[in-house]
Amino acid sequence: MNEIKIEISARHVHMTQNDLEQLFGEGYQLKPEKELSQPGQYASPDTVTLVGPKRQMENVRVLGPCRNLTQIEISKTDSYFLGINAPIRLSGKIIGSGAIKLVGPKGEIDLKEGAIVAKRHIHMNPTQAQKLGVSSGQNVKVAVEGQRALVFDQVEIRVHEDFDLAMHLDTDEANAAGIEKVGSGMIVG
Amino acid sequence: MNEIKIEISARHVHMTQNDLEQLFGEGYQLKPEKELSQPGQYASPDTVTLVGPKRQMENVRVLGPCRNLTQIEISKTDSYFLGINAPIRLSGKIIGSGAIKLVGPKGEIDLKEGAIVAKRHIHMNPTQAQKLGVSSGQNVKVAVEGQRALVFDQVEIRVHEDFDLAMHLDTDEANAAGIEKVGSGMIVG
Repeated sequence: MNEIKIEISARHVHMTQNDLEQLFGEGYQLKPEKELSQPGQYASPDTVTLVGPKRQMENVRVLGPCRNLTQIEISKTDSYFLGINAPIRLSGKIIGSGAIKLVGPKGEIDLKEGAIVAKRHIHMNPTQAQKLGVSSGQNVKVAVEGQRALVFDQVEIRVHEDFDLAMHLDTDEANAAGIEKVGSGMIVG
Repeated sequence: MNEIKIEISARHVHMTQNDLEQLFGEGYQLKPEKELSQPGQYASPDTVTLVGPKRQMENVRVLGPCRNLTQIEISKTDSYFLGINAPIRLSGKIIGSGAIKLVGPKGEIDLKEGAIVAKRHIHMNPTQAQKLGVSSGQNVKVAVEGQRALVFDQVEIRVHEDFDLAMHLDTDEANAAGIEKVGSGMIVG
């Protein structure tokens, strides 16, 4: 069985401890409100406002724990709404990505880069990769059934000890495939 | 060659002459501002505000000429933003579709139904259908290349003398496929 659970990533922000403190105050610490499917990752209760040249979006969730890069993951729809550039990138590949302003309760940051649209991908651990016969960095095709059936190509396999099997789409992709909340797909190539 | 031009339908409204007059005033007439790809169809300079229980969207374009049904075509992203239900339907199939309020400069209308997310489709005339070996009502698969390559399934063929060859996607679908402004695809099944 090559069936994969599909989760939808709504717009969110990962940030460095340093940027967190600039937005939320000195010594501020993220704390978990809700565990996510990837072990150790969580949604915090904290939110920021994304500010683009055209418009802004409030209540954008900060995920934890803090990382060594501040990264804003939005959909293409969001990028047009904000009026910013946001290239399609794998998480962490933010060099030359979109500029954006973040506003928190205690401060703001003008980022020269950091805004991306996440490239669609499947998280898994090495055991799961072996079982599925795929390897890290490989791109696969995933078929989704239903009223808006389609086959996603260019779905990147991401393997790490800390990952657990789940495919991540952004909201545009989920809507295009008719997926609400969670879905499932089959690796077909 | 089964290559098809792909156009993106941003949110828009078709309306009856009666509803037009309720929103824009007695005797109001739509006039073309920009011709669309489908012969006789045009964007008017007029816009309305879509009002849902959660939020509203301003400056939504009215397309002409007037039709015998008032129909609001939005994306799933838009439907979540507005807080309304909008099922995936072929144009014209609005029975039991989403309720929404329209606000114009001279009045407003509470519609019990009319809001849909357009089912993806390809317009063509009978000669083009014959050439492509497809028929009205058939569902085909269309492959899109690029960074967000995918194969759309459930793409409905719509044949009419007044149509010209073009595939229509909504903004979620176009974004999911990495299409900006216009794109192209191949019928692959």
